[in-house]
Amino acid sequence: MSVNIHDIAYSLQNALNEHPDLKNLQSLYAQILADPNAKPLFSEFQNFQMTMQQKMMQGAQISPEESTQAQALMAKVSQNPLISNLMQAEQRMNLVIQDLNKIIMKPLEDLYSSLNR
Amino acid sequence: MSVNIHDIAYSLQNALNEHPDLKNLQSLYAQILADPNAKPLFSEFQNFQMTMQQKMMQGAQISPEESTQAQALMAKVSQNPLISNLMQAEQRMNLVIQDLNKIIMKPLEDLYSSLNR
Ligand SMILES: [Ca+2]
Ligand SMILES: [Ca+2]
Repeated sequence: MSVNIHDIAYSLQNALNEHPDLKNLQSLYAQILADPNAKPLFSEFQNFQMTMQQKMMQGAQISPEESTQAQALMAKVSQNPLISNLMQAEQRMNLVIQDLNKIIMKPLEDLYSSLNR
Repeated sequence: MSVNIHDIAYSLQNALNEHPDLKNLQSLYAQILADPNAKPLFSEFQNFQMTMQQKMMQGAQISPEESTQAQALMAKVSQNPLISNLMQAEQRMNLVIQDLNKIIMKPLEDLYSSLNR
């Protein structure tokens, strides 16, 4: 069955590759990178996000100043329609992935939840 | 395509459910829970692991004492053949899942790696 399970995984890869939410995401990234207003704003946002993620992974606290800074940056970037659309597209893509993971991982989920009963 | 992608995900769920590595894992858990030597040892190990994971998630340091304690517990549990087999079975299952994830998530991996070039 090991060959079979990989074949199915590749079919899922193809379906994801053709998924309208992925196509939309690819298109929005391309538009942002080609847009002189959106591009630098998006870079600023990505850098800030990366810094915050590293802090969280290190278990560091987010300061009140950083929290205010994050809200201001969020307000600024979400006024750009391309970036605002991208954020919504990312959320939709995340829901698709979560959905797939929930379905695929059910056999393991069932095993581990039966152990905790 | 949204219906189709779910059908494929359910096929993958079925393939995972029939996967020999999952069957093996289910069987080992059942044997451990039915074994008067392995069961309490396994509980001790699980509790210790959970405590360590919580610490790491909180960003807390693991003390040298805890590290020594972890090694001693690891040595003790791995002498039990059922638990030792379970650990190997978990590793094999993890590799299967990692493998599937790598295949399925390639379209997103490709998108994000193209952005960082
Ligand atoms: Ca299989
Ligand atoms: Ca689809």
